Amino acid sequence: MRIEVICTGDEVLTGKTINTNFAMISQKLEDVGLAVRWETTVGDDRDELLLAFQLAGQRAHAVVVNGGLGPTVDDLSQEVAARAAGVDLVRHEGWVARMEEYFRARGRIMPSTNHKQAMLPAGAELIDNPIGTACGFAMTIGRARFMFTPGVPREVRRMIDEQLIPRLLEMYGTRSTIYLKRFHSFGLGESRVDEMLAGVEALAPEGSVRLGFRAHYPQLETKLAVRGRDMEEVRRQLGPVEAEVRRRLGNFLLAEDDQTLERNVLGALLADGASVAIVETFTGGQIAARLAPLPDAGKAFRRAVVGLDREALARTLGAADAGAVSLAAAARADTGASHGLAVLVDVDEGQDRVEFGGTVDLAIVTAAAVATRRSRLQGGREWLRLGAIEMALDCLRRQLAGLPVDERIDFEKSV
Amino acid sequence: MRIEVICTGDEVLTGKTINTNFAMISQKLEDVGLAVRWETTVGDDRDELLLAFQLAGQRAHAVVVNGGLGPTVDDLSQEVAARAAGVDLVRHEGWVARMEEYFRARGRIMPSTNHKQAMLPAGAELIDNPIGTACGFAMTIGRARFMFTPGVPREVRRMIDEQLIPRLLEMYGTRSTIYLKRFHSFGLGESRVDEMLAGVEALAPEGSVRLGFRAHYPQLETKLAVRGRDMEEVRRQLGPVEAEVRRRLGNFLLAEDDQTLERNVLGALLADGASVAIVETFTGGQIAARLAPLPDAGKAFRRAVVGLDREALARTLGAADAGAVSLAAAARADTGASHGLAVLVDVDEGQDRVEFGGTVDLAIVTAAAVATRRSRLQGGREWLRLGAIEMALDCLRRQLAGLPVDERIDFEKSV
Repeated sequence: MRIEVICTGDEVLTGKTINTNFAMISQKLEDVGLAVRWETTVGDDRDELLLAFQLAGQRAHAVVVNGGLGPTVDDLSQEVAARAAGVDLVRHEGWVARMEEYFRARGRIMPSTNHKQAMLPAGAELIDNPIGTACGFAMTIGRARFMFTPGVPREVRRMIDEQLIPRLLEMYGTRSTIYLKRFHSFGLGESRVDEMLAGVEALAPEGSVRLGFRAHYPQLETKLAVRGRDMEEVRRQLGPVEAEVRRRLGNFLLAEDDQTLERNVLGALLADGASVAIVETFTGGQIAARLAPLPDAGKAFRRAVVGLDREALARTLGAADAGAVSLAAAARADTGASHGLAVLVDVDEGQDRVEFGGTVDLAIVTAAAVATRRSRLQGGREWLRLGAIEMALDCLRRQLAGLPVDERIDFEKSV
Repeated sequence: MRIEVICTGDEVLTGKTINTNFAMISQKLEDVGLAVRWETTVGDDRDELLLAFQLAGQRAHAVVVNGGLGPTVDDLSQEVAARAAGVDLVRHEGWVARMEEYFRARGRIMPSTNHKQAMLPAGAELIDNPIGTACGFAMTIGRARFMFTPGVPREVRRMIDEQLIPRLLEMYGTRSTIYLKRFHSFGLGESRVDEMLAGVEALAPEGSVRLGFRAHYPQLETKLAVRGRDMEEVRRQLGPVEAEVRRRLGNFLLAEDDQTLERNVLGALLADGASVAIVETFTGGQIAARLAPLPDAGKAFRRAVVGLDREALARTLGAADAGAVSLAAAARADTGASHGLAVLVDVDEGQDRVEFGGTVDLAIVTAAAVATRRSRLQGGREWLRLGAIEMALDCLRRQLAGLPVDERIDFEKSV
């Protein structure tokens, strides 16, 4: 089945807005085994839109269109779709009622301009948008089934999951359910995890589980796309694979699905009634900036002290010396936190380049224990900083979970 | 002149990589008055690439192709371009020599796979890539002039500026030079600045200066695209307009061209032999994270203390009370910095939403003066945080420049 995507809008075509919607749509389809073959971006221009619809309608079986469903005059998707199919626009009274309810619930009167959003090509199938005033719709142009979605990211994201993927899978001839299970790790490269997980797909019936990866340094996402007749079958097939992936990723598994490292660290602190005080140098406040903004952080995030001169940090904190252990201990004592975390980075001298790196000196001090780790990271100034931030949070996660904090990672060079 | 862009590569088509290259290319062309009309993304697939080249070759006058020039087997741009034009691939000996020199300068032998990068369609014009092994090239397919560029962002960025824009402008029939002057401000909306700058284009000969904007909250970029026969004429035409824009933006102008707010703040601190100690709450270390990573920050960035409980911060710092002025004064005294900056944020209770906001309480204390500002910002939790960070750095810039720190901004609600 050939799937194409058409993205519309002057903002995207001129590059004022980076087209993140397309990447999101394509990834979501790929996650359920549907590949996008072609993408077209055009502006808010009747002739170009019409040509794009006609060309895709000749080539593809299914076309996802994004954008152009708003209430303003430059939103042209319904009008041009009707023209491409040679039909009129018809007001969808059901959607007018939904929009009126939407505004009423917010204590407002619906502006008359919004009526435009309920004008759909005759014969089009409405696609529900549960969180906005732009409804989607599906219709046939040429030989392809077109599905129109609004440009607002959270609206299209939800509609892809709930509305488009089931329709596309049905067109594809699989009446199956597809579920995506995700695992997040730090410190292992994609090829290493691929090796570690060799054969896990075979723990489920053939073709029902597909393994994939998405690397976004410093984390790696491992994905299992699971196919079954319904969620019950999916869960049955996923069960043994999921357990095996967890076992093999072991200490490196830091979060699953929509969880994040920082939320899990905060959750572990809160669960233990624990709290943390942080000392940062080259990371410049970015370790703190991952924890402090989270809801409930106030109960566990006690303090961060950021400075580039570690002797000065030691004087301020009254530390015995300017080493990571002393600084972490002093930060802990100073704030009454249960955990002191110090992350000191010795940065290479000279011009930034790929071989540029530094040494991360890290200590976590509690009433009962001292854990330390020393690592050399490379890849340029920014990669060093990102790696050090992630390593700090991951070591804190490990320490709270009773795991070793100094397990060797792939990015590391021997010191 | 109709310009199209074709982006190639499975990484981009599957959404694993967000297509930032396209936005960059389109913006750079728009900045010199050249509009992109259509964009196509295809994967590393011979048939799809060929079709994309043929279709664009029928429609457009000029086509910029990005990606597919690497040394590996899935890099197909030269091969498919030759097929589309019905010519052979010919080894460009000049480029082979350049690549050998490139590797020699790095103390390495050129792998034989790199020879592929010097295979160009017969008759193609080489387009220089001064910083990589993938050369660009130009050739005619259908009725359009195609210009091929590599996918590495810094390489294509430089080639667009130095190689493609001059060629496109010449095709467009203007033998003129185009220069882009940029101004950055904080606190003024796009429509407000548009009003403030009404008529400035008229200070240059008609059509030679074009005003534009790019909003990236919380900053606004104001752009002047200047056209002239050569740089001397450009400078002559820009002069009076540039001076007038500076005058009208006045205290709100925080940087020009590639300067950034944080670099300018650091520069002003260093120029005065001054230094800063920061106290943060809801901004969570992100004010520090803008300054601390900069080269030379060590000479002026003394310390940041981050905590969510301001009473605890006051106790730690030995401040007289938990107000912004006392905290800033205490941080200053504690570190011997010339400037103490405290940024306290009272965040609304409840669910995050667009009306969600908070009150920013800000103080800058020096030996000679105390400056304060109190503002209510809205737009959701993340906008409040971003606004508070920018406001803090901008107030420090203003204080160092002897400007008022409490000038009303557009985002602000009355407290």
